[in-house]
Amino acid sequence: MRRALELAARGPAVGDHARVGAVVLSPDGAVLAEGWHRGAGTPHAEVDAMRQVDPAELRGATAVVTLEPCDHTGRTGPCSVALLDAGVTRVVYAVDDPGAVSHGGADRLRAAGVQVVSGVLADQAEAFLERWLLSVRLGRPWVTVKWASSLDGRAAAADGSSRWITGAAARQHVHEQRAAHDAVLVGTGTALADDPSLTARGDAGEFLADQPLPVVLGDRPLPADAALRRHPRGVVTIPGHDLEAALRSLRDRGVHSVLVEGGPTVASAVIAAGLADELLVYLAPVLLGGPRVALDDIGVGSIHGARSLRVLSTSSLGPDLLVRARPVPPRTTSPVDGAPTDRSTT
Amino acid sequence: MRRALELAARGPAVGDHARVGAVVLSPDGAVLAEGWHRGAGTPHAEVDAMRQVDPAELRGATAVVTLEPCDHTGRTGPCSVALLDAGVTRVVYAVDDPGAVSHGGADRLRAAGVQVVSGVLADQAEAFLERWLLSVRLGRPWVTVKWASSLDGRAAAADGSSRWITGAAARQHVHEQRAAHDAVLVGTGTALADDPSLTARGDAGEFLADQPLPVVLGDRPLPADAALRRHPRGVVTIPGHDLEAALRSLRDRGVHSVLVEGGPTVASAVIAAGLADELLVYLAPVLLGGPRVALDDIGVGSIHGARSLRVLSTSSLGPDLLVRARPVPPRTTSPVDGAPTDRSTT
Ligand SMILES: NC(=O)c1ccc[n+]([C@@H]2O[C@H](COP(=O)([O-])OP(=O)(O)OC[C@H]3O[C@@H](n4cnc5c(N)ncnc54)[C@H](OP(=O)(O)O)[C@@H]3O)[C@@H](O)[C@H]2O)c1
Ligand SMILES: NC(=O)c1ccc[n+]([C@@H]2O[C@H](COP(=O)([O-])OP(=O)(O)OC[C@H]3O[C@@H](n4cnc5c(N)ncnc54)[C@H](OP(=O)(O)O)[C@@H]3O)[C@@H](O)[C@H]2O)c1
Repeated sequence: MRRALELAARGPAVGDHARVGAVVLSPDGAVLAEGWHRGAGTPHAEVDAMRQVDPAELRGATAVVTLEPCDHTGRTGPCSVALLDAGVTRVVYAVDDPGAVSHGGADRLRAAGVQVVSGVLADQAEAFLERWLLSVRLGRPWVTVKWASSLDGRAAAADGSSRWITGAAARQHVHEQRAAHDAVLVGTGTALADDPSLTARGDAGEFLADQPLPVVLGDRPLPADAALRRHPRGVVTIPGHDLEAALRSLRDRGVHSVLVEGGPTVASAVIAAGLADELLVYLAPVLLGGPRVALDDIGVGSIHGARSLRVLSTSSLGPDLLVRARPVPPRTTSPVDGAPTDRSTT
Repeated sequence: MRRALELAARGPAVGDHARVGAVVLSPDGAVLAEGWHRGAGTPHAEVDAMRQVDPAELRGATAVVTLEPCDHTGRTGPCSVALLDAGVTRVVYAVDDPGAVSHGGADRLRAAGVQVVSGVLADQAEAFLERWLLSVRLGRPWVTVKWASSLDGRAAAADGSSRWITGAAARQHVHEQRAAHDAVLVGTGTALADDPSLTARGDAGEFLADQPLPVVLGDRPLPADAALRRHPRGVVTIPGHDLEAALRSLRDRGVHSVLVEGGPTVASAVIAAGLADELLVYLAPVLLGGPRVALDDIGVGSIHGARSLRVLSTSSLGPDLLVRARPVPPRTTSPVDGAPTDRSTT
């Protein structure tokens, strides 16, 4: 299974597919073939592996797959049937297929007398597939919210100028994050104020291989000469302010992950709605003060309602700091148990 | 000199004195004695060292001192004279005495025929003595500004509640910082809203050995039953909003370092006035949004006026992050040279 997960990681990181890996073993445990899924429309991992093996050798073989074999005919046929047809007698997988249509492969295999073992390295496979699993389970893409601010939480100076709050390394990191998401979303405020291109570019300004789908949310129209209109993926404009509907419609287009790049209004709305799955906060070593906060109101009235985060990592990007964090469920009890009772500590 | 600096560090970290160390060497370079300054009213380091040596042995000896020997009679006599009287023929020191009255020791020694070498390990000694040197040079204490905020720069939730934004480790660190400064300053806003005690306490709530002088700045009176009135050092109230005058008056009381603990109004005013020498920003892994920013207006109109910082360190304190930083001179040219010309990177 460890090997199958390595193989899964060879698949494309973005796109409308799960990254799955598979290893086919002979009855005596020898590796017969390895396979992985290369993206929508291509063979699933187990089929990719089986195609490399002499059909005679597949009789009685074991298939080790990171995801439950699918049970429906999409752009490819059901893997459960392919495994049965091939005469595989044992299937080991990590994570159940959460899809309403595609799940059921394990049941079909068991009913046909195949020995099925599930849950092997499940945590690791869950973590590896988390964006895809979430998007299938919740019917909306994984949402990463990014913002760049001064150390005191400002997205721009009082006059609105914000050019290069963060340095080159942080900006390059943002471009790589764009390439690592299926879509990038901004509000009309950002689209109109910054005229961004929202392409994923390298150090020298060259396009990266993966370009996210740019999405603009809000009622105001995008000017005919907006840079976004020249984006290689085209631009999706979604009128209105309904974040959940917008995310669902992106999911229906095959978008499994969205990088929300702001501005403050949209970022705050996403966080207030509890739709942020991960935060990327780039902190520049400057102070700005003034009214242009990077996050507005997020619906927190009192300290007990603070949105708690779990920090995954803190790293330096040139002079800047990147804090990667994920929301944790709201606190139900008092903030700190056993804290001293003197309230004057700050 | 390296040894003299080690000795200097044995002196008390806070108080109305410079921390100075000294080593006395025989003409053939053997260490005759070591000394250090133990605080106002006690012998200076070179005198402390010389007192341990048989006067006969001091003839022709060398004194290595971290600070230029003083040349005035304060609570102790001038060290320059003591060195001459003892027959020391060579004096090596690191940093010139910046005091208007106390400096001149090197000149007097040279005039009397003593060989004087200055500037040895000067950078290291400057850094070690930076708070004291700044307070003598500028006539105001060293100012450290501390605040605790959410990752999005809020000092409190919308309703003003802020209890335990940061965790126990960060709060303990603040207590240690109080003990490491001569005074702690807040505005009347904080004094009235939080009724803080501003004592320096340990993990178990016990008083630390060094207690800072608590100072409240502003016009509103401190209630008769304020916790600050029970502070072991008493409380200093300074009416008005004149930060420079307030700092000068603290300096005149022998205060060489002040920890500004806020709130937002006073912290912002200190930063706007360019009076902050170091910042301690405690960032808690929570989001609050809303109006209660940790820093208000600091007089920055456009991004070109951003107050740039040099980050000295970033460290974890339990779940929180501490960013230690110092202001750097304002940028005079465009923020980033050679930055790409597309302005849509954020
Ligand atoms: N530092 C950073 O990381 C960063 C990132 C991006 C932008 N910025 C800066 O942010 C500024 C723009 O700020 P902004 O807050 O106006 O930008 P924004 O969040 O991109 O756009 C806000 C607009 O989006 C529409 N909208 C869509 N969904 C919404 C919802 N759920 N709730 C409310 N409104 C929604 C509304 O416009 P309609 O009336 O058109 O519907 C709203 O006025 C620019 O100056 C830009 O430079 C900074
Ligand atoms: N998160 C943190 O690190 C932290 C730290 C401290 C406080 N806080 C919170 O901050 C809140 C209090 O905020 P605040 O801003 O009112 O507190 P503040 O800065 O302590 O006090 C502001 C008041 O100080 C006086 N003042 C003195 N010098 C001034 C100057 N140079 N400019 C302007 N005013 C000056 C003014 O009052 P007069 O009219 O009396 O002159 C002013 O209203 C409390 O809720 C507290 O819990 C948070």
